[in-house]
Amino acid sequence: MPYNATPSAANRADRFIWRRKHLLGLRDLSREELLHVLDTAEGFKEISTRSIKKAPPLRGKVVVNLFFEDSTRTRNSFTLAANRLSADVLEFTATGSSISKGETLRDTARNLEAMGIDIVVIRHSAAGAPHLLSRCIDAAIVNAGDGQHEHPTQGLLDIFTIRELRGDLKGLKVAIVGDIAHSRVARSNIWGLHKLGAEVILVGPPTLMPASVEKLPVTVCHDFDAVIPEVDVMNMLRVQFERIGSTVFPSGREYSRLFGLTMDRLKRARKDVLVMHPGPVNRGMEIESEVADGPNSTILRQVSNGLAIRMAVLFLVNQAAALKEGTDKTP
Amino acid sequence: MPYNATPSAANRADRFIWRRKHLLGLRDLSREELLHVLDTAEGFKEISTRSIKKAPPLRGKVVVNLFFEDSTRTRNSFTLAANRLSADVLEFTATGSSISKGETLRDTARNLEAMGIDIVVIRHSAAGAPHLLSRCIDAAIVNAGDGQHEHPTQGLLDIFTIRELRGDLKGLKVAIVGDIAHSRVARSNIWGLHKLGAEVILVGPPTLMPASVEKLPVTVCHDFDAVIPEVDVMNMLRVQFERIGSTVFPSGREYSRLFGLTMDRLKRARKDVLVMHPGPVNRGMEIESEVADGPNSTILRQVSNGLAIRMAVLFLVNQAAALKEGTDKTP
Amino acid sequence: MPYNATPSAANRADRFIWRRKHLLGLRDLSREELLHVLDTAEGFKEISTRSIKKAPPLRGKVVVNLFFEDSTRTRNSFTLAANRLSADVLEFTATGSSISKGETLRDTARNLEAMGIDIVVIRHSAAGAPHLLSRCIDAAIVNAGDGQHEHPTQGLLDIFTIRELRGDLKGLKVAIVGDIAHSRVARSNIWGLHKLGAEVILVGPPTLMPASVEKLPVTVCHDFDAVIPEVDVMNMLRVQFERIGSTVFPSGREYSRLFGLTMDRLKRARKDVLVMHPGPVNRGMEIESEVADGPNSTILRQVSNGLAIRMAVLFLVNQAAALKEGTDKTP
Repeated sequence: MPYNATPSAANRADRFIWRRKHLLGLRDLSREELLHVLDTAEGFKEISTRSIKKAPPLRGKVVVNLFFEDSTRTRNSFTLAANRLSADVLEFTATGSSISKGETLRDTARNLEAMGIDIVVIRHSAAGAPHLLSRCIDAAIVNAGDGQHEHPTQGLLDIFTIRELRGDLKGLKVAIVGDIAHSRVARSNIWGLHKLGAEVILVGPPTLMPASVEKLPVTVCHDFDAVIPEVDVMNMLRVQFERIGSTVFPSGREYSRLFGLTMDRLKRARKDVLVMHPGPVNRGMEIESEVADGPNSTILRQVSNGLAIRMAVLFLVNQAAALKEGTDKTP
Repeated sequence: MPYNATPSAANRADRFIWRRKHLLGLRDLSREELLHVLDTAEGFKEISTRSIKKAPPLRGKVVVNLFFEDSTRTRNSFTLAANRLSADVLEFTATGSSISKGETLRDTARNLEAMGIDIVVIRHSAAGAPHLLSRCIDAAIVNAGDGQHEHPTQGLLDIFTIRELRGDLKGLKVAIVGDIAHSRVARSNIWGLHKLGAEVILVGPPTLMPASVEKLPVTVCHDFDAVIPEVDVMNMLRVQFERIGSTVFPSGREYSRLFGLTMDRLKRARKDVLVMHPGPVNRGMEIESEVADGPNSTILRQVSNGLAIRMAVLFLVNQAAALKEGTDKTP
Repeated sequence: MPYNATPSAANRADRFIWRRKHLLGLRDLSREELLHVLDTAEGFKEISTRSIKKAPPLRGKVVVNLFFEDSTRTRNSFTLAANRLSADVLEFTATGSSISKGETLRDTARNLEAMGIDIVVIRHSAAGAPHLLSRCIDAAIVNAGDGQHEHPTQGLLDIFTIRELRGDLKGLKVAIVGDIAHSRVARSNIWGLHKLGAEVILVGPPTLMPASVEKLPVTVCHDFDAVIPEVDVMNMLRVQFERIGSTVFPSGREYSRLFGLTMDRLKRARKDVLVMHPGPVNRGMEIESEVADGPNSTILRQVSNGLAIRMAVLFLVNQAAALKEGTDKTP
């Protein structure tokens, strides 16, 4: 049951019972589950426009932000989402913690659980860390980015933004541009978009394509300029500076010449093309400033929608946990 | 309209509508505006004496503490003030944030705004940073110290403390002693005190006077001992240790010999002189311990009043923001 | 009066008025006071099993976590305990604070107090720091570990756990194993257990025994294997790695050979022996993994009980502070 959705989304959502206590990745989700998160988020988006931006469904619940990698944006977004649902938030950083005293991830998590926390939002450099947690503790687990594997709430907020501006995703052409190989954002987008009927085109140099790209439901193109005129959406991935100047990519100038979205390139795109970016933007590298701040850019809308998506995810996993407690204790 | 003030303050405040969505400095404020903040703070001071120190006016609002310089005291004071008004607080530090990934201040702020925050409390080493923010985002901005420019809530809490103990400021003589050149505290005090009719005397060595001191509404004196007998208030600025031993000031011993407030010096002052300090005190440098802990010292009272002032400021800028939303969207 | 206890604990607690505004150590507490904290905690444990884990008694109060030593576990436990009682929590770390600008502990505390905080939870590397605070400020002080002196809430949670599983402590034999000399956990356990009638046996090498061990109400044994069959409880202290390889202890392997709790050793203990550890566990050093995760281990139960104990302590010191305010202002 959605918290507070528009009539059509509410209708659809009413017919569906969400049963997942963990959100580990979009690859596992069915089309119906994906739509249910989006519909639920639609209801929550309204709360953020109110004068008093609070709703009570997670009152007395504790969400822990268990971040093993630095992140301002995603962490703040989850904190605000939890606050807005009236949960208490415990901030946990690896530095200066029992982790630095040699404690294992499993022991840290079980200790937090013994303190009565309800939801763990985890970001970790190791792919699969959230799955590991979901097998050793009873609390609900939300993946906030694991290695190069998935970043499901980012995928959901990207898809939510496209749906909000274009309606049904079926048949839309979405280019994901840049360093696909190392991107958990790309991976979550690919699975989500594919399940909702969009066509995904990966764009980037061969050195930045994932190893088994042929197993993904995508097409690949190394020539950005060839792709531009035909796509509805361009999702420009963030360049990780530590990879520039390495063997996978010679220089930043070379990158932006081949794969940067300039005003010149934008002129050859569809007039209503959506320009997306997970942030923070390296202005002049992935996207020219004029494009990033222009009318096609959805960058700030994505940030706003991220809050609604994270409220929906926290709300749903908590609901599923309550359902399970009512029936059995199997996670 | 004040939240909960004493009858006289309440009466005065009732006749005034506060329209500023940002508090950037005291230089811009009119005499009426200054008095209105002080009157509003008077009402809020009462809340902190209650058993349950909470009031609801900022419930569901989000205040972000955007501090680019270390500060325990001011940050804690704003956090407590926001909590006391039932706001949620997001703590943002530059270290380990997207700022360290090269994001600009403007992008950071616009991203926070897209997450639905209502008030940004900013401290920054660059003079003008809060003004920059106020031009690129819609949220209310409160300056918590910008470079050597202003620190308006410190100025207000100093003035509030003087008014609380001496009544009307008109005709009072206030000495500000020490490193005026580098002090944003001094600057905010000068503008505020001047507008309320106090006479400001700057005391310190020529090397620590601001460049265009003749344009400020003050008199200057390099001899502390000459000033002591005639002033009602001595506001002793904190010595920044990094400047001691440099060309502007040869040694700490020399500083305290010329400008330190000792018991000997205090004996030559008016019996009811107020000894102020923004804290943290370097005991034995600006002020001898016995003076800092003595009956003339207002140091801890200033800290208490800081909370009331910050509650008032958060309350007023939020009120102005709500007013604007009701009429137009111009910041 | 207990907040919400089981009938027998409630009955007992109803006849007792708690008058301590500070919890500095267990050495000072009477048997009746110890039992009163345990009875109060029993009532609070129930709150953590509810769907909405909140109670209102500290609403509008401010608890400050003043930690001068790193600690995730204890800090998080106090934060959650305070949240659960509806208090606001101010996190204060020594790094990047006014402390690093040279401010004294006393000035820091008096400043926090001037901001209207109600309870200071302090951890400090110097024994006696909480006592010092209790003499210079009016707020309630809770010792969260001071040097090698005491860690009273850890002692209480250990004793609470034993009582929960074994009932009356009178006549129980409790071994405390490891580095007694440097352990504040050991010291708080010794005083508390002794007052409630348990027999305490300290186990460890002579180099890790405290200097004046003959003045403590304990017996000492250097042979762990001799003690194992006869005790009801084994409290395995954490090995501080910085001491391994030093003159007090040659090697970790040697330590675990002599004092590590292995499955082999456990087989020679009473079938229902309680295996305790304050955490975080160095698996394979103090305790073999199989033992730490086995049925005799109370490690996670201790963590859960820690929350209830800390809720009880915060509740009681706040109650005592309110009582004092009602009568006089003497701390």
